Amino acid sequence: MVTKVTKPKDLVGNMMIAQSGGPTVVINQSLVGAVLEAKTQKNIKKIYGALHGIQGILDEDFVELQKETKRNLEAVALTPSSGLGSVRKKPTPADCANIFQVLQKYGVRYFFYIGGNDTAETTHIINEEARKQQYEFRCFHIPKTIDNDLRQNDHTPGFGSSAKFVASAFMGDNLDNRALEGVKINVVMGRDAGFLTAAAALGRRYPDDGPHLIYLPERPFSLPRFVRDVKAVYRKYGRCLVAVSEGICDNKGVPIISKVTKEVDSHGNAQLSGTGALGDILANEIKAKTKIKRVRADTFGYLQRSFPGVFSETDAREARASATLAVRCSIEEFANGSIAIKRKPGKKYAVYYARVPLKSVAKETRHMPARYIHKSGNNVTQAFIDYAAPLAGELPPIGRLKGV
Amino acid sequence: MVTKVTKPKDLVGNMMIAQSGGPTVVINQSLVGAVLEAKTQKNIKKIYGALHGIQGILDEDFVELQKETKRNLEAVALTPSSGLGSVRKKPTPADCANIFQVLQKYGVRYFFYIGGNDTAETTHIINEEARKQQYEFRCFHIPKTIDNDLRQNDHTPGFGSSAKFVASAFMGDNLDNRALEGVKINVVMGRDAGFLTAAAALGRRYPDDGPHLIYLPERPFSLPRFVRDVKAVYRKYGRCLVAVSEGICDNKGVPIISKVTKEVDSHGNAQLSGTGALGDILANEIKAKTKIKRVRADTFGYLQRSFPGVFSETDAREARASATLAVRCSIEEFANGSIAIKRKPGKKYAVYYARVPLKSVAKETRHMPARYIHKSGNNVTQAFIDYAAPLAGELPPIGRLKGV
Repeated sequence: MVTKVTKPKDLVGNMMIAQSGGPTVVINQSLVGAVLEAKTQKNIKKIYGALHGIQGILDEDFVELQKETKRNLEAVALTPSSGLGSVRKKPTPADCANIFQVLQKYGVRYFFYIGGNDTAETTHIINEEARKQQYEFRCFHIPKTIDNDLRQNDHTPGFGSSAKFVASAFMGDNLDNRALEGVKINVVMGRDAGFLTAAAALGRRYPDDGPHLIYLPERPFSLPRFVRDVKAVYRKYGRCLVAVSEGICDNKGVPIISKVTKEVDSHGNAQLSGTGALGDILANEIKAKTKIKRVRADTFGYLQRSFPGVFSETDAREARASATLAVRCSIEEFANGSIAIKRKPGKKYAVYYARVPLKSVAKETRHMPARYIHKSGNNVTQAFIDYAAPLAGELPPIGRLKGV
Repeated sequence: MVTKVTKPKDLVGNMMIAQSGGPTVVINQSLVGAVLEAKTQKNIKKIYGALHGIQGILDEDFVELQKETKRNLEAVALTPSSGLGSVRKKPTPADCANIFQVLQKYGVRYFFYIGGNDTAETTHIINEEARKQQYEFRCFHIPKTIDNDLRQNDHTPGFGSSAKFVASAFMGDNLDNRALEGVKINVVMGRDAGFLTAAAALGRRYPDDGPHLIYLPERPFSLPRFVRDVKAVYRKYGRCLVAVSEGICDNKGVPIISKVTKEVDSHGNAQLSGTGALGDILANEIKAKTKIKRVRADTFGYLQRSFPGVFSETDAREARASATLAVRCSIEEFANGSIAIKRKPGKKYAVYYARVPLKSVAKETRHMPARYIHKSGNNVTQAFIDYAAPLAGELPPIGRLKGV
């Protein structure tokens, strides 16, 4: 089937949008931003929402989003976790061909997929399939990931709100650890990139505030060194609060958690979330190798990406803006791609959005730059705080008795 | 030393206040309420805050709270976790004698101890010591516990805010579980009483919303039955969200967690918090006994009692009011005791406060009444929702696409 369009305004058809990967608190801001923008575009007719990502496309399981009221869409925008459902599915070549057939069958000329780097890859594959078959088609990846690990981006929608949750949680737990002293270890999400774990530092207000130690997947983790670090902090403050990324690995790149769990996903990655195993390994190590009596570990788990009511205003605004822009670009710029958030230089926080090739954000992940990691390897730098603070936005105020 | 006072107004001296047991989000509302009230009472001179509960009294480790500004106290009131530090210490008879000596040495005529049932017991012991020695002395226990298990009380300060956190967390996690289907088990605090775990139900908005199963320490827990329950829910909804109290025990009263952890505290209780072990036991059981692929467990941990910014207005107000009243009673009513929150009959939520004997709240705990527990043993009743909803206060709004 060959369709030739020479001017952007000529491409008229239906739209398909879906969500993929781990949910975030602001992922529906992107969904709603795209839908509201699409409703104003006369080239877009029906707006299909596929349920559970590409699985919904394969199953022809859609809802018609143009039928939703603005009022209800705005309520959904404020609600955490993918309103259309999500999926973790790496499409096979056969899946891709099937997906494209369904899109054709439903007259879809505009496709938007909200997600991380795997989602960008799927979008890229679908776009390539359309190109091969010379089907006039616009397709955009809309960025989302609490891990903040998309290439091309200064930061990604979803990160700021999760950073706010993690920073707030550490502010509270630091006070808890001051009240009932001991060693407290908190495990934070992030398989490959340490941004979210690093965000634990954003709530420090006093010189003795924790987290006192921060371990990131970007640096090899050694159990004996960990024990030495904890002992040193405990000697100094009589307590120690630790932030650990779930993805920490030894110097051979083997995840520390794989010492106890064997489950792997379809990408061959060890299961990191939804288990308290890593925290317990680390707490048991401190119990075994020191005389410290009170040693506790918590794993923040899925609360980090789905807790309602705690979100960054900046993050919510940018999540919506990226999606709005993706829809606008698909029509006005006559193009495909992904929307990336870039930061303007200068002291005052400001961003701009850029259209970047799908391929340039697909698959590979971005890590914490070395300048954000303290040379000790167990903390972050002021440069990281300056980078991340405007993304998380305002944190709860903390008071302390002057006399204490 | 014998001091005889015949009229309330004659008892002039210093005051001591301290905090004990697990922190809460509103425990400093009580501290600040007591201090601000004491500052208006001319019978009270210095206001000592003992650091880390009775340990601070034994160590003569105090701050002078009358020196704190109102502005700073109000900032502390909004800050989670015991601002004076806390302790878990069961005083020996020798400790009690020493504590009383220190109180005498510092001319303390008013003593207030904020905490749960163990704290009430300590307060009672100190009061008895004063009585034996005929030392004119007023002493009050100020209630606090997220477990909501104090006798004499309709509910306790600290519970409402933690209930709001737990309910919010389940609302978010329910949406997460809808997006990426599977079995999700969340372990909630509460050794003996299931109130906080039951609060997981407060955020249900649609008939298919989780938690679908709720296991409380008030009912014996059976692993085979748990597996059957989960399978049944999974068949119905294609997913299952479970709330489990950390304190669940088998039909012999043995904590399920004790199958893996051996650590016990000074009261001989197994360590329940600060480990992901129970969640992992339950998740592994489902993985082993069913064909369900995606099974995850999170343990909410200390976030439940210390997360800043998420609190119930009602809870904050009542935490302050109980403490204010304790100070007022100690002077105007010429009495000792504990302040209990009682609920007025009627549909509209309203409370009154009563002075109750220290002994009547000390030591023993209160459990969930049978009428709050569904006869299936794996859920709560509407009576519980009606009871707890006004305590947690307003929950975040949740939107859902009409078409889904």
